[in-house]
Amino acid sequence: MLRSTALSDARNDDPRLPRPRVEALDAILGQPLRVLDDGYVRVVDYLGDDSAVVQAARVSYGAGTKKVHEDRGLIRYLLRHHHTTPFEMCEIKLHVRVPMDTWRQWIRHRTANVNEYSTRYSLAIDAAQRTPPDQWRRQSASNRQGSAGLLPRDVGEGLSRAEAEVQDAATAAYKARIEAGVAREQARKDLPLATYTEAYWKVDLHNLLHFLRLRQDLHAQAEIRAYADAIGEQIVSQWVPLVWEAYLDYTRGGLSLTRLDAEVVGALLSGGPARAVETATALGLLKRNAEGQFLRNRERDELEEKLRQLGAAVPWE
Amino acid sequence: MLRSTALSDARNDDPRLPRPRVEALDAILGQPLRVLDDGYVRVVDYLGDDSAVVQAARVSYGAGTKKVHEDRGLIRYLLRHHHTTPFEMCEIKLHVRVPMDTWRQWIRHRTANVNEYSTRYSLAIDAAQRTPPDQWRRQSASNRQGSAGLLPRDVGEGLSRAEAEVQDAATAAYKARIEAGVAREQARKDLPLATYTEAYWKVDLHNLLHFLRLRQDLHAQAEIRAYADAIGEQIVSQWVPLVWEAYLDYTRGGLSLTRLDAEVVGALLSGGPARAVETATALGLLKRNAEGQFLRNRERDELEEKLRQLGAAVPWE
Amino acid sequence: MLRSTALSDARNDDPRLPRPRVEALDAILGQPLRVLDDGYVRVVDYLGDDSAVVQAARVSYGAGTKKVHEDRGLIRYLLRHHHTTPFEMCEIKLHVRVPMDTWRQWIRHRTANVNEYSTRYSLAIDAAQRTPPDQWRRQSASNRQGSAGLLPRDVGEGLSRAEAEVQDAATAAYKARIEAGVAREQARKDLPLATYTEAYWKVDLHNLLHFLRLRQDLHAQAEIRAYADAIGEQIVSQWVPLVWEAYLDYTRGGLSLTRLDAEVVGALLSGGPARAVETATALGLLKRNAEGQFLRNRERDELEEKLRQLGAAVPWE
Amino acid sequence: MLRSTALSDARNDDPRLPRPRVEALDAILGQPLRVLDDGYVRVVDYLGDDSAVVQAARVSYGAGTKKVHEDRGLIRYLLRHHHTTPFEMCEIKLHVRVPMDTWRQWIRHRTANVNEYSTRYSLAIDAAQRTPPDQWRRQSASNRQGSAGLLPRDVGEGLSRAEAEVQDAATAAYKARIEAGVAREQARKDLPLATYTEAYWKVDLHNLLHFLRLRQDLHAQAEIRAYADAIGEQIVSQWVPLVWEAYLDYTRGGLSLTRLDAEVVGALLSGGPARAVETATALGLLKRNAEGQFLRNRERDELEEKLRQLGAAVPWE
Repeated sequence: MLRSTALSDARNDDPRLPRPRVEALDAILGQPLRVLDDGYVRVVDYLGDDSAVVQAARVSYGAGTKKVHEDRGLIRYLLRHHHTTPFEMCEIKLHVRVPMDTWRQWIRHRTANVNEYSTRYSLAIDAAQRTPPDQWRRQSASNRQGSAGLLPRDVGEGLSRAEAEVQDAATAAYKARIEAGVAREQARKDLPLATYTEAYWKVDLHNLLHFLRLRQDLHAQAEIRAYADAIGEQIVSQWVPLVWEAYLDYTRGGLSLTRLDAEVVGALLSGGPARAVETATALGLLKRNAEGQFLRNRERDELEEKLRQLGAAVPWE
Repeated sequence: MLRSTALSDARNDDPRLPRPRVEALDAILGQPLRVLDDGYVRVVDYLGDDSAVVQAARVSYGAGTKKVHEDRGLIRYLLRHHHTTPFEMCEIKLHVRVPMDTWRQWIRHRTANVNEYSTRYSLAIDAAQRTPPDQWRRQSASNRQGSAGLLPRDVGEGLSRAEAEVQDAATAAYKARIEAGVAREQARKDLPLATYTEAYWKVDLHNLLHFLRLRQDLHAQAEIRAYADAIGEQIVSQWVPLVWEAYLDYTRGGLSLTRLDAEVVGALLSGGPARAVETATALGLLKRNAEGQFLRNRERDELEEKLRQLGAAVPWE
Repeated sequence: MLRSTALSDARNDDPRLPRPRVEALDAILGQPLRVLDDGYVRVVDYLGDDSAVVQAARVSYGAGTKKVHEDRGLIRYLLRHHHTTPFEMCEIKLHVRVPMDTWRQWIRHRTANVNEYSTRYSLAIDAAQRTPPDQWRRQSASNRQGSAGLLPRDVGEGLSRAEAEVQDAATAAYKARIEAGVAREQARKDLPLATYTEAYWKVDLHNLLHFLRLRQDLHAQAEIRAYADAIGEQIVSQWVPLVWEAYLDYTRGGLSLTRLDAEVVGALLSGGPARAVETATALGLLKRNAEGQFLRNRERDELEEKLRQLGAAVPWE
Repeated sequence: MLRSTALSDARNDDPRLPRPRVEALDAILGQPLRVLDDGYVRVVDYLGDDSAVVQAARVSYGAGTKKVHEDRGLIRYLLRHHHTTPFEMCEIKLHVRVPMDTWRQWIRHRTANVNEYSTRYSLAIDAAQRTPPDQWRRQSASNRQGSAGLLPRDVGEGLSRAEAEVQDAATAAYKARIEAGVAREQARKDLPLATYTEAYWKVDLHNLLHFLRLRQDLHAQAEIRAYADAIGEQIVSQWVPLVWEAYLDYTRGGLSLTRLDAEVVGALLSGGPARAVETATALGLLKRNAEGQFLRNRERDELEEKLRQLGAAVPWE
């Protein structure tokens, strides 16, 4: 039982040292990283670094653990085992410029601090996201909430012209209202969703990684994914490189097997394709119609996708 | 020291009784209460009532307190003294239909559960809020983020016509994109901010009262105030009438004096107008320019407003 | 584009119907489910059921989706893909009686509403958790924060006697302080951590499942695991049986492969044991010391454990 | 309407400048500020300062507002009007050492990040808070959850001796369990609530001020008040002096009048004591029993207290 305080034993920081700085992040501090046609993300300030995660974990573990784990191993262990609180000990503040339509998705992440540019108080930003003729995405047939491929450029040219017209008309209506003396809070009501807004966004590292996991995902909408990629690859990778490596290995590069998936993979490993088919059938993943064709089954589709990721042949094909 | 459990002594609910129901709220369950031109709020479900607040407070206070406070007095005491956790023991789920521009403000209240209609997955709702010719609000000169009075009807008529045009153009562009095969998630990008959306919104009573305090305030934008008024006056007042009465008496009907305000009011009470002027001067609230006119001072303006609310003459006028 | 409101198309609830009830849960409403020697959990109230999850998901998806998914499939899809917000649409309120030491862990789940029995206001509950002679757990050698097996009964008898003495001494000191007129808030200061407390705990279903995932885990401490098991198996399974089934299949029964794990499993599937050893070596998972023995490596240990769960032989053994 | 970005106009920070530092806070960085007999608070790191609050507010207000408000006035305006989000833009990380009993109250503030010393993983800290003979507080008769005055020193001497005995017995039992091989997670179960623990606690400035408002309050328990006072007066006052001044003037030094209070104060101001008695009677604040004595009424008691704070005589006395 310790008589001395845990403080004196456990801390690995010298109180006289300055606050931790990350040179690679300081190098881009305040610089707008461009995203989309007129958006950006820039780092305003931050608190903590890789070693702050370690330091917090070690308060939990008390004295004497310094030698057991080295930092990289400890960070990897924490992330692998969902010990999330040490990652909350780092905080970052960004200044973002983003279309309101994207911001609508962004703001759904509730565990963050936000100050948004006020179009009640000030005139709206005179810029809305524009789409180049070759960037109009086709509605996905298989995924109702996604896109798949691009429309032909000639179709896109018409769409981009019409986009400019509708945006210009909305801008003109806005300006006419302002000139007529309409309150800014009301004048803005018909601005396009794609109008740019700006905000300070402050978030801890755990919640930022959660944001990245959802918004760098292939199912996320392209616009917010562009922001998430910029934040992940240009900012987080510089700020906390050990955490970022672990995130890539576990959170992003990982593969989640359901109980059913695991049984089929296990059968494949221990008994080969025939056993896997048997197991999948018993689990209800393989159902055929009267003609012997497989019925559509989303769980099976997803399992097949995972088998492909593992580099294995789908045993029932 | 209790040998028996706190449970057996403290509970005032019979475990065999059904869950509490509030008849007045059941009477409007599922019914859309109309707000704005095409919006509504309706109650989907709820948990708890006035007595659930009392019940929770009494677990904190343990056995033997039943006789000391009756329910109304206890609820009033709790609200007056910011004992907020018992109010978190009630929960309500609403289905709302609201312009996205208003929803942008609504969603800033982070301590709530939300499921919003997805315009990635489904076609956008074909309705945007429209403004009658006599409802265009004039920009306030004194309050940069507010409105003051209405524009003349003839000006409004032009504005309403232009509003219809810009909304129709945006709708046409949206439909053309959908017909061209553009993904819904991208097609929506230039819809007006005033386009209606729908959502389930679930919140506990403490956070709902906080929402109402901010959004029924005279400085809140008229649109969200209309929703807050409907929720407060038609729903909360029926659901938890004792809490609502206390909220009106303390949170909404109350008056907050700063340290400086309190000193001036105290001087007025004990020494009359002359002493109040003296005190206000000493506190730096009354400053004059070379011509002897009061310099603009927001703290003094607010104090004057509070004195008027108290029915007292402003001593330096 | 919908002209009619999403409401009229999308809702699958009749507004005149009463709020959803779950008979199996109503049957145990208010009944204490015993946990540990003197604790319990009981359901006080709830909001929503399996179909409320579906209903919320369908507002997101709008009209016309009713036929595509049936409820069970939709719930499974939502849970598998971490679409968590529909699960937040259900809420439950429990009354728990639990040792303070366990409550210390419980309360770390921040997204919940809490009213705890106040030992400032009332006398402390005169009961602390006692340990039977055959329930003293041995410190784990491999897992510094865990236990492994039980101590012999004869050792346990001594420990249980000493436990009774130290608890009785603490109780006596508490009573003596109260009799001397010491304030309750101060008198309690040396009560054992194992003293029982009571609380109302209200939480939404998403956060409850997260609590269960962490607290039913084999690494969770036995005491809180007992509560989590009671809540999961006796309450949640009755309340939302479809959600519970999906939770067992995906969240609890699932297997998470890191990027490194997935590469080794993939190598095993496509190239057999030799290829798997090669891959694991290239990834740095297999390191040997000068004597050719494997160096301790936690990531490898965990991969071996996962291979065993899949029913596969460890290729390097 | 701005063509240029709000960024280039609105920012008042030069991106090449280093992150803001606060010299007065840097001077105490890492230094334990002693609280109670063996506790402390020390600043580990921080993000932002007074000007970060201003900067965030100005993003909301856009370009051109720099000259209108100077920093102090803007901060005071924000705090007075409950514009809380700019205060969330500052963050501080503390390392605290505190009795578990006090920590139980502290941790109820949910909007914060926490890493606590683990007594599952490590041996418990061998120190519990001890009470000097002259520091035993008497139970308050009027306030069931408070204390009032101190017990005589000779009574205190007996209590302090008994405290040492019960703590020593608990320590001995803990050590005996550890020596017998009991798991640390179980061995700790009968440690006194007053045993010291340590934690990192990270919180934004808005939530920190809320913590201080509740925990520096005279109704807060003396132990947590000692920590809150240290944090407020030694840390926050140095970190963000303008915010601290505004907090003292508005949040802490303010006076909250209920609707009923305001009517009585208004009557007193405009009509003198007789009118005030009339108004209070009409509002139900003054009720007498058959003998003409005032009935106990907590709302009236509180109003009387406020009148005294205003320096006014109670009109019905």
